[in-house]
Amino acid sequence: MDDVDADAGPKDRIQSIERGFAVLLAFDSDRRNPSLIEVAKATGLSRPAVRRILLTLQHLGYVEPTGGSHWRLTPRVLTIGQHYATSNAIVSVSEPHMGRLVEETHETASLSALDGDEVVYLARVPAKRVLNVTATAGTRVPAHATSMGRVLLAAAPGEFVERYLQHPGLQPLTPHTITDPDQFRDALERVRRQGWSLVSEERERGLISVSAPIRDHTGHVVAALSSSSSTGRTSPGHIERYIVPVLTRIAKELSTDLGG
Amino acid sequence: MDDVDADAGPKDRIQSIERGFAVLLAFDSDRRNPSLIEVAKATGLSRPAVRRILLTLQHLGYVEPTGGSHWRLTPRVLTIGQHYATSNAIVSVSEPHMGRLVEETHETASLSALDGDEVVYLARVPAKRVLNVTATAGTRVPAHATSMGRVLLAAAPGEFVERYLQHPGLQPLTPHTITDPDQFRDALERVRRQGWSLVSEERERGLISVSAPIRDHTGHVVAALSSSSSTGRTSPGHIERYIVPVLTRIAKELSTDLGG
Repeated sequence: MDDVDADAGPKDRIQSIERGFAVLLAFDSDRRNPSLIEVAKATGLSRPAVRRILLTLQHLGYVEPTGGSHWRLTPRVLTIGQHYATSNAIVSVSEPHMGRLVEETHETASLSALDGDEVVYLARVPAKRVLNVTATAGTRVPAHATSMGRVLLAAAPGEFVERYLQHPGLQPLTPHTITDPDQFRDALERVRRQGWSLVSEERERGLISVSAPIRDHTGHVVAALSSSSSTGRTSPGHIERYIVPVLTRIAKELSTDLGG
Repeated sequence: MDDVDADAGPKDRIQSIERGFAVLLAFDSDRRNPSLIEVAKATGLSRPAVRRILLTLQHLGYVEPTGGSHWRLTPRVLTIGQHYATSNAIVSVSEPHMGRLVEETHETASLSALDGDEVVYLARVPAKRVLNVTATAGTRVPAHATSMGRVLLAAAPGEFVERYLQHPGLQPLTPHTITDPDQFRDALERVRRQGWSLVSEERERGLISVSAPIRDHTGHVVAALSSSSSTGRTSPGHIERYIVPVLTRIAKELSTDLGG
């Protein structure tokens, strides 16, 4: 079990790397300081295997023992995501634009991209209010029930959308989530036509957001810029009148900065 | 390399996991879309080894081919850091406090922790100015030349500081960086006495920041909260008079929220 080839599972992949990430991702809000036994249970790996993986991750600086044979993640894991931010121009280029969006709308600004079937937040600038829509870079949400996801799906190939409708499908997250495929295709067509997406309470009660596409120099949609708020302090009509013009203008300026 | 755990010898570690992370970290600002050959060169691994690791990381969703046998990171790598944020209360608890700090100071707020010899940004709320001090969660900076690092080193065991003075040592980053060990020990003593640290242009010309410690329920310093600005629009005297009272008050409130 010691080197690359001996650990090889499927022909071209390295099983121990897959197991290493499985152990790293076993640390979450349900298991902040898991014991070796809890990690073994969560990953389905044997205790000796988990022990060697934890020692390897400790050597790399990603986990550390907390005493009593429990473990925790170290802030070094943030460095991995930082490599994404520095290797992708969009995160750094978007920052001042997101700042202006918050300044002009007084609402939280987010930047996100599609990763498989889900939307991943790339960056976020919270509005200066106590009640914030909380989400940090790396948070994943279902694509179909969010304005960001609608903008990204509207720009995706038709086959991708049809596959999404099959699986994972239009899972209802609130009573307002669009679950009818035809209605959903119409919603995407409207997004393509108007150039932005407004989604109210389809992901979560009280949450309303509007998004616009960000294009790279080839014209491809690479991300969605969004402004999110609570239904308690705004309405779709208010957003359409006051937020959409600001959002679409800043989304265009950001696209221009990316060479789009 | 230093093994914290006494029984963690090289035999207990899994080399392919270490290689997997080496390949993942080979993607950075210098190599945004590296070829297999470039990754092999950067990591010192053989091309067949790198090929299998890339295929494994692709299977896990962390990298994808861009055509022409080049590769890039996917936003899924952000998910790894997100597990740190959700498994550590401090990031979520600090958010509203950082928002208030920005609101009251009109300067960028950051939260950071010590990781080995370096300071890692855990979170950041940019001020609504165009000229921002740019740093994202996961960015690493030398501890000795920053106010965050001074606060964290001031709370670290004496042996840790003495080891730091030996290695990496007080590397000069600007002509203002304190490089004399005695002067540095005095600076840490002052931080302990006054409860905050002000550092001007020791890390970078034009950059000035002030930090205060964040304590957990055991009273241990677990992070530093800081406010950073440019020397072009503020001065140490202004910071001491107007920013320090706000910063130390909010740092105490955040510590209280953590049970400190």
